[in-house]
Amino acid sequence: MLPSLYHPDRALTLGILGGGQLAKMTALAAYRMGLQVAIIEHAEQSPAGCMTKFDFNKGWNDVEELDRFVSACDVVTLENEFIDPTILERIEERRLVFPSSATVALVQDKYTQKQSMQKAGIAVADFVAAASVDELVAFGETKGWPIVIKTRKFGYDGYGNQTAYRISDCQSAWAKFRNTESPRDLMAEEFVRFTKELAVIVARNRRGEVVVYPCTQTIQQQHICVSVLAPAPIEETLQKKAQEVALACVEAINGVGVFGVEMFLTESDEILFNEIAPRPHNSGHYTIEACVASQFENCVRAVCNLPLGSSAMHQGGAAMINILGERNGSGIPDSVVDTLRHADASLHLYGKKDSRVGRKMGHVTALGPDLNQAFHKARAAVEALIW
Amino acid sequence: MLPSLYHPDRALTLGILGGGQLAKMTALAAYRMGLQVAIIEHAEQSPAGCMTKFDFNKGWNDVEELDRFVSACDVVTLENEFIDPTILERIEERRLVFPSSATVALVQDKYTQKQSMQKAGIAVADFVAAASVDELVAFGETKGWPIVIKTRKFGYDGYGNQTAYRISDCQSAWAKFRNTESPRDLMAEEFVRFTKELAVIVARNRRGEVVVYPCTQTIQQQHICVSVLAPAPIEETLQKKAQEVALACVEAINGVGVFGVEMFLTESDEILFNEIAPRPHNSGHYTIEACVASQFENCVRAVCNLPLGSSAMHQGGAAMINILGERNGSGIPDSVVDTLRHADASLHLYGKKDSRVGRKMGHVTALGPDLNQAFHKARAAVEALIW
Repeated sequence: MLPSLYHPDRALTLGILGGGQLAKMTALAAYRMGLQVAIIEHAEQSPAGCMTKFDFNKGWNDVEELDRFVSACDVVTLENEFIDPTILERIEERRLVFPSSATVALVQDKYTQKQSMQKAGIAVADFVAAASVDELVAFGETKGWPIVIKTRKFGYDGYGNQTAYRISDCQSAWAKFRNTESPRDLMAEEFVRFTKELAVIVARNRRGEVVVYPCTQTIQQQHICVSVLAPAPIEETLQKKAQEVALACVEAINGVGVFGVEMFLTESDEILFNEIAPRPHNSGHYTIEACVASQFENCVRAVCNLPLGSSAMHQGGAAMINILGERNGSGIPDSVVDTLRHADASLHLYGKKDSRVGRKMGHVTALGPDLNQAFHKARAAVEALIW
Repeated sequence: MLPSLYHPDRALTLGILGGGQLAKMTALAAYRMGLQVAIIEHAEQSPAGCMTKFDFNKGWNDVEELDRFVSACDVVTLENEFIDPTILERIEERRLVFPSSATVALVQDKYTQKQSMQKAGIAVADFVAAASVDELVAFGETKGWPIVIKTRKFGYDGYGNQTAYRISDCQSAWAKFRNTESPRDLMAEEFVRFTKELAVIVARNRRGEVVVYPCTQTIQQQHICVSVLAPAPIEETLQKKAQEVALACVEAINGVGVFGVEMFLTESDEILFNEIAPRPHNSGHYTIEACVASQFENCVRAVCNLPLGSSAMHQGGAAMINILGERNGSGIPDSVVDTLRHADASLHLYGKKDSRVGRKMGHVTALGPDLNQAFHKARAAVEALIW
């Protein structure tokens, strides 16, 4: 691969903040291309930390551990957008970091994130920063109920989101998010009556070269992504439109790396920006098998400023279904044998030590000449897993 | 994945004897499925050893190191058929090893290997064990010149092979292989006037379930594989015949794991067995991108006695071209940028510290609707690499 800038006899070492499944799959892509990998995480035996000797498991809040991690890396990326941008700034004093602290700071606050998109001319549902219950209520009264109340920072998989149908819901959300030891800044958004949720992965390197992946449909249950369909079963013009929106979003924040852009398709076939993740995204796991270059490979290429790989699909359809924990306890399933009997499906297990109900423990991807066949293969394989 | 048999809170650990590119690619497949990986190798910072903390770099001839390695593993496999079967037997006292010491012993000696195939009714070129120059000469005189003289053990990439066109060549081969500090047992084979060299990967698990991959054509230069075409550009009936032969070969030696079977296609469209490797094989690297389950994934599945994944190809054609070292020196190429500009090709670099002229340093795979397109993509990408 490229030589390390700091240890000329070594290959370039990619450092990843976080050691979960996104880091693991990025590391697998990096190894394939001949890079070395360093991981920093607040735990021992993280899924990605197991895969390297450069495993800094005291986490990035330990100044000395962070310093050791940084010394081991040539280029640093992240799998988790909740990291304090001041940590990224500290790393930037010594190393290249992508996405940059500026991009992460902007994205981390969903209010400034949405403002940036709106400024760039991207369609979004109306939104407002709310400094009081009255402002939440006023937004609901003006825009019409329900509204969606969100913490501006640190929300994921539905944590930090609440739909308010009436004034009393605003009061209870306020109490929940504000009257706590660490009160959260809030925002409110119009409730979007969407017909589908869409997501598009975009890779962008430091020279501004971009690769846009197919438009997917994501299916959530209780705010957690359960499956992804590629390409989304919608008209091609809408797929293209979603890809254009996603690309514009990444350019609006000068993003370098890989980004997952979530959008709503409305009843009137409008595409509204919802959220952007500055990292490989669950909606792009299908790309490992389905595309010439996966989102993880292109993450590595993008942050190392290498030319990007093709996002073309090998077959007509691909489906990814998450394996969600069905128990609290050991992270090792009781049996994967029946899943593996589905010889056409690809099983990914993240190697998390502990399972929790609803926790993302792995996923299955299947390809097919069309989406329908791919989905049925993947679903059958996931349903055969025994916890 | 499966739980470890010895550390119930851990996932199953696959141990690999050897830390080169085959171990590395097997490890990548194992990690994806949630296993842990242990490596034993006679060197620090081997391509696969870098990817795990269970990296036993004092090698298997160090009894204590071997013991520590074995203790860390649940199931053991190998990337190198030259390992002393007594080492495998020692491991077998404590752990499952696949392929077994019996299979490896049989395969390691090319004479007993060929005998086994002949006994199973598989067509081979005539061969003989030769205990003297006279026996080599007699074989040449009977069968017709030239003949191929081989060391029975430890030959690879043409090392240990010599074509003899006349009596004096037999004498010089004898001198080269026998009159040394460690004289090698020799055999002789009829020279096969082949039109193509074929190879088929076969995976077989402990229950005897098998998966056969497409028949490929391998192209060698100076006895080193330089490229692999899948499927081989030959008639479908011949492809099928080669697959049948390959399967019969693996069953003839009761092989468990993944095997690369090399065959000759003769001028009269006969398929003759040439050699079998009891491990993932260079001719199967294309399966990483081209097939639903790669040879490496099926190696993991087979030795863990799991159901096998499909060998179906995603597209009509695939081509793999090896990246061979062009210098003696650093293993890090001067530039991969121009190679990566070929966005349709997949680059694998093994992360070997040192390059030697002709050493396998990596490979490129490309897929296409047909073989021709795939090959041109892969070749353009490899030619753009700068050493």
